[in-house]
Amino acid sequence: MTVFSRFCVALLCMMPYALCIDATQVKSPNGNIVLNFTVEQGRPVYSLTYKGKEVVRPSHLGLELAKDKHASMGLDERDLMDGFTLTQENTSSFDETWQPVWGETKDIRNHYNEYVATLTQQWRTAPPAAKSGMRMQPRLHRRWINIRFRVYDDGIGFRYEFPQQPELNYFLIKEEHSEFAMAGDHTAWWLPGDYDTQEQETQESKLSEIRSRMKEAVNWGNSSVAVFSPTGVQTSLQMKSVDGLYINIHEAACADYATMHLELVDAETEALTTELQGNSNVYTPAPTPSDYPLPQPFTFVSHLTPDATGLKGAMQTPCETPWRTVMVSDDARDMLSNNLILNLNEPCALDDTSWIHPTKYCGVWWEMIVGKSSWHYTDDVPSVKLSTFNYQLATPNGRHAANNEKVKHYIDFAAKNGLDEVLVEGWNIGWEDWANMWKRDVFDFQTPYPDFDIKMLNDYAHSKGVKLLMHHETSSSTQNYERHMEKAFQLMNKYGYDAVKTGYVGDIIPRGDHHYSQSMNNHYLYVVKEAAKHHVMVNAHEATRPTGLCRTYPNLVGNESARGTEYEAFGGSRPDHTCILPFTRLQGGPMDYTPGIFVTKLSEWSDNTSWARITIAGSLALYLTMYSPLQMAADLPEHYERFDDAFQFIRDVACDWDESIYLEAEPADYITVARKAKGTDNWFIGGKCDENGHKSTIKLDFLDKGKKYDCTIYADAKDAHYEKNPQAYTITKRVVKAGDLLKLTEAPGGGFAVSLIAK
Amino acid sequence: MTVFSRFCVALLCMMPYALCIDATQVKSPNGNIVLNFTVEQGRPVYSLTYKGKEVVRPSHLGLELAKDKHASMGLDERDLMDGFTLTQENTSSFDETWQPVWGETKDIRNHYNEYVATLTQQWRTAPPAAKSGMRMQPRLHRRWINIRFRVYDDGIGFRYEFPQQPELNYFLIKEEHSEFAMAGDHTAWWLPGDYDTQEQETQESKLSEIRSRMKEAVNWGNSSVAVFSPTGVQTSLQMKSVDGLYINIHEAACADYATMHLELVDAETEALTTELQGNSNVYTPAPTPSDYPLPQPFTFVSHLTPDATGLKGAMQTPCETPWRTVMVSDDARDMLSNNLILNLNEPCALDDTSWIHPTKYCGVWWEMIVGKSSWHYTDDVPSVKLSTFNYQLATPNGRHAANNEKVKHYIDFAAKNGLDEVLVEGWNIGWEDWANMWKRDVFDFQTPYPDFDIKMLNDYAHSKGVKLLMHHETSSSTQNYERHMEKAFQLMNKYGYDAVKTGYVGDIIPRGDHHYSQSMNNHYLYVVKEAAKHHVMVNAHEATRPTGLCRTYPNLVGNESARGTEYEAFGGSRPDHTCILPFTRLQGGPMDYTPGIFVTKLSEWSDNTSWARITIAGSLALYLTMYSPLQMAADLPEHYERFDDAFQFIRDVACDWDESIYLEAEPADYITVARKAKGTDNWFIGGKCDENGHKSTIKLDFLDKGKKYDCTIYADAKDAHYEKNPQAYTITKRVVKAGDLLKLTEAPGGGFAVSLIAK
Repeated sequence: MTVFSRFCVALLCMMPYALCIDATQVKSPNGNIVLNFTVEQGRPVYSLTYKGKEVVRPSHLGLELAKDKHASMGLDERDLMDGFTLTQENTSSFDETWQPVWGETKDIRNHYNEYVATLTQQWRTAPPAAKSGMRMQPRLHRRWINIRFRVYDDGIGFRYEFPQQPELNYFLIKEEHSEFAMAGDHTAWWLPGDYDTQEQETQESKLSEIRSRMKEAVNWGNSSVAVFSPTGVQTSLQMKSVDGLYINIHEAACADYATMHLELVDAETEALTTELQGNSNVYTPAPTPSDYPLPQPFTFVSHLTPDATGLKGAMQTPCETPWRTVMVSDDARDMLSNNLILNLNEPCALDDTSWIHPTKYCGVWWEMIVGKSSWHYTDDVPSVKLSTFNYQLATPNGRHAANNEKVKHYIDFAAKNGLDEVLVEGWNIGWEDWANMWKRDVFDFQTPYPDFDIKMLNDYAHSKGVKLLMHHETSSSTQNYERHMEKAFQLMNKYGYDAVKTGYVGDIIPRGDHHYSQSMNNHYLYVVKEAAKHHVMVNAHEATRPTGLCRTYPNLVGNESARGTEYEAFGGSRPDHTCILPFTRLQGGPMDYTPGIFVTKLSEWSDNTSWARITIAGSLALYLTMYSPLQMAADLPEHYERFDDAFQFIRDVACDWDESIYLEAEPADYITVARKAKGTDNWFIGGKCDENGHKSTIKLDFLDKGKKYDCTIYADAKDAHYEKNPQAYTITKRVVKAGDLLKLTEAPGGGFAVSLIAK
Repeated sequence: MTVFSRFCVALLCMMPYALCIDATQVKSPNGNIVLNFTVEQGRPVYSLTYKGKEVVRPSHLGLELAKDKHASMGLDERDLMDGFTLTQENTSSFDETWQPVWGETKDIRNHYNEYVATLTQQWRTAPPAAKSGMRMQPRLHRRWINIRFRVYDDGIGFRYEFPQQPELNYFLIKEEHSEFAMAGDHTAWWLPGDYDTQEQETQESKLSEIRSRMKEAVNWGNSSVAVFSPTGVQTSLQMKSVDGLYINIHEAACADYATMHLELVDAETEALTTELQGNSNVYTPAPTPSDYPLPQPFTFVSHLTPDATGLKGAMQTPCETPWRTVMVSDDARDMLSNNLILNLNEPCALDDTSWIHPTKYCGVWWEMIVGKSSWHYTDDVPSVKLSTFNYQLATPNGRHAANNEKVKHYIDFAAKNGLDEVLVEGWNIGWEDWANMWKRDVFDFQTPYPDFDIKMLNDYAHSKGVKLLMHHETSSSTQNYERHMEKAFQLMNKYGYDAVKTGYVGDIIPRGDHHYSQSMNNHYLYVVKEAAKHHVMVNAHEATRPTGLCRTYPNLVGNESARGTEYEAFGGSRPDHTCILPFTRLQGGPMDYTPGIFVTKLSEWSDNTSWARITIAGSLALYLTMYSPLQMAADLPEHYERFDDAFQFIRDVACDWDESIYLEAEPADYITVARKAKGTDNWFIGGKCDENGHKSTIKLDFLDKGKKYDCTIYADAKDAHYEKNPQAYTITKRVVKAGDLLKLTEAPGGGFAVSLIAK
């Protein structure tokens, strides 16, 4: 098989501004994917096909640089957009199998063909003002970048690389202009582009409908705070073409770089208006017109998250952008089993990972989310200053959840049911006025409330084989967190915590920065690295969406970065929500979705009229379909005690796996997956569907031949329904062997869960 | 004496929006200063007289608040500008004498009359949308602030105070509008207003000439980066009226608040143009028009330093602004002996101050400033990344100053001459590309260059009774500094450093922030507080201008915050520069001016053609006239060895004092001061003049009667001149007693120094 071919080898050295429209072609190992790359009129262009079908039509690549007053930075403000000559090409192949510290499978194969194009700019600048009549020569400038492509059987990744060189040491990015020209008006599952939140409900529409749907998308019970464009969407973006291709655009290894959004060029883009400005939720920054012509409609163009000054990044060579990923298949299941994003990340950077472990946990949390109890301790004052307020003298409000008695109750529950850890939110002082006040010194992460005896509770937990799970809500005051972080981790080490849930609610302090900017992405990873020094696992909420960095730093065991279960208490999420997330949010890494709500109508036990659009069997399925090494049993212990036979599945289910087989999948419709528990012969199967229900026939051909399995099926009862009858389930037991069939019916908004314990 | 009088007591409770034009009058202890305060049409107004002469004409006070999307902040975006009723008045007197840890005098008397006006706003907002046909009442809002005045014999301070209350817990400041209406077209010594530098040459002009002089002021060899207005100036602002009043406006105790500038309302203010925008050095932010009418010409209005979003401050009650100070006298010497700003600061916050000590030092510094040697170690690469660059393999450039041999030479010099410490800049890795690159991870403050043996050198110094003085250049990457600071201080403790010179060269990272913003002012003080925990003294360069916080945190032993001696290597400063600084920059605290340049023509020993506009005798005078507990002998050891008889004065002079008597003073002309060395009977006198020379007749009536003193006079020789003959000096010795006269002639740009050692 000819992996690399070149139809036209221009004599580039002799033709520095040569126009070469003949492309280099790079095929994936099995040949299904073909990448074309060329330089056209000085601009790099790539395109992509899958089994001969267009996936990405010819699309430009490049970066616009910002003008900076520091002439010493050595640039004359020339962009990295055009004027390029292809001066070198390198190709190679790679095939390796590696083992993640935790994951969906024991082994991951990283198999690709690589192509690196070196692109050179040369230009002359006017000579410096001539002194004493001397004739000065124009100065010749030369600099180069690489664009590196990795072509897999299930997609590609590419990134820009900036080697260190005399004329490229520092630069500021005004905007990255990576194009992804779609071949048609695909169906897309998208979130409004936003610099600070990704907790919206997913929109399903044609690309051509994004603009008209944007207002609704922003207003629909969402918390958008910085929508940047009427056609701006977030990644990972899942699409489906009319001819049956599943296409996903995202990024990998976004470490010290701004998070990428995508802005769609549609028929109306030329008349980009400020139509969203009337919406008070929507922040429209000053337009930044580009000198470069707009691409064709149905083209996505990268749009990076700005810093407080509107710039997108400060770079020092040698450096590179994150990988831009395009995954593609004609089988939706491949979108879920795809490891392209993990593969594009660097190998594990930690020498010792023995302290990292998948974790099942419960927590003092849901009753605060629902509004029945409080994070804060006292109602005495409208605001507190940590340095002066005396909590010992304050009147308890009687609703503070993180108290000794309640936490002991949760510890007892965890111990009894084999849960590893107990999260406790609201344990530390400062919750009286923690959010949305632009309050810098909001928490110290070290001082417990008077009714939370940190030593006693940890001792008590440890005596029962359980750990407490730390909580650091930063209130997005990142400077404050960094000032206290070392001592906060020392406190964790002292009392035996080994995991922290961090939170970034509200606007970033320093003011003007955004959740997904370069500096914030640096912050999140700084926290993960500092935590690793203390052998602390991190589960960051409201942080930037993951891009596979958990391969390199496997103590990053979870993120929120999407609409989690908490929204079931804030008006609810659609039943198909969890059938979309694995195609979108989960591409970059696991989500701490906090599943397991059994009492879905919150008014049964609180004043909250919101309700979860899911059946109990569906909730059980999420422990399989929403892969995470961190799984919460989020509901109250007493609710689980009411449905203890169903809770048995949560007790049994693993959260680390040797093998995972996606049996069925269709975005926003259904997902069925079978997983083999780590180091065992036991399998678990989960199926989750949307509001329409679903019928599954599962052939157990993945079981070990000759073995028998105790099979327990947790299914929706016949009349189950996510709204009308969510708590109707059946539990049946039988013995099965390889090749047997399971026929299962999922109710509207329901699902099923199956455990297969090898006899 | 009637200290407080009120001519009209309005029945305020019954007249919530009463117009009361009769003012409260508050006199200073000796009655020379009279403050008037009233509320006029709902706006607070104050004025000030000195011995019956107008100092501040009626001037409004108030703050404009920013609209914020967080309705939860509890404000309906109403300003704190008008609609006020005077609802309470409190008066009191205070007289206390306190002892600074270090200072110009052993005792400081804090004697004032205080007046606190409580101002209340009441307003109604429309009722919430009526539900089920109920008639809803408009909601009544009420909140109050205090304005606290302290009236001294030599000036006043006032501040806004914001008590905690139901309707005032958090607010964002759009602008503070404190007015200072001058009574005439005074002469002013001013710096262009700038958010990031105060290292310009001082301008001397009439107030009416500020606008026309601004361009020149900005361009004149200055480094202005963020000039905000064509009539914006910095504080401390020294003025002189045509009728002989010396007036100074500054601030005290600016801790967690933006630094104040002053914007002059002049005849052209109504037509505020962007005339400065053509100047590429000048950054003109978007204009922020106010709804409030402009005050009369010759009025200064406060202008705070913004954050990256343009806002001026985020406040949480209870809180207060810094004190705004107006010092006044008809004797210029009173401007220098005035302790008003220290008095307005809080008492010492440190329990133990035994480790804080005035310090004379030399350092590996001047030869880098002049350009003869380098801070950086290697020329191998155009940029370095600390995490990967291997300095052990790099080629030394041969010009790196902070090497073992040279540092030992400086240690020997310090030990021989009784200097306490040796500053070493350029000791730590990262200097290859440290400035103006937007480089976040620029230094680690912990790793020495290969040729700097940190243990050996500290051991060597200590064996000779000398300490090394640490240097932390942050490159204004404050986040990076805060990340490394704790470990950097631990390193200092480990090796026995007890003082650090910090630096903030270049633009602030996070980008968009400014050197004098609220967050940066918080940062500088955070460093001082963290340093105190490690018993480390701080001398912060390029940080915000001091406002007397050294009273509260006496480990803040110095600041630069003005044009220091380094500019003698960057083109030079005018000879009158050091006759202005004590009236302006030094009002808020000591300056690490780094005096003592003996070889003023730098071309004598380097390629630098710049030269210092001062005589050797003038340089000696600076150790008296530029008060600081931290005094550097900045020139090279070999230069001092050439003039060892003159250097004897630097060996002898104290840097901590029991008494200080300003004998003569006129801004920009001359300053003569006599100081009694701490804990001794010895006196030192210094006189410094401008380019015109000066004749002094000093009556030694401050000496102890009956005692005799060995008097050594270091004077300009007859033909001495700052340019033509700077190294011509005479040294004469005699024995003197109380009441004797010294007649001294200062050359142009010269001065004199006298030591009086009690026999």
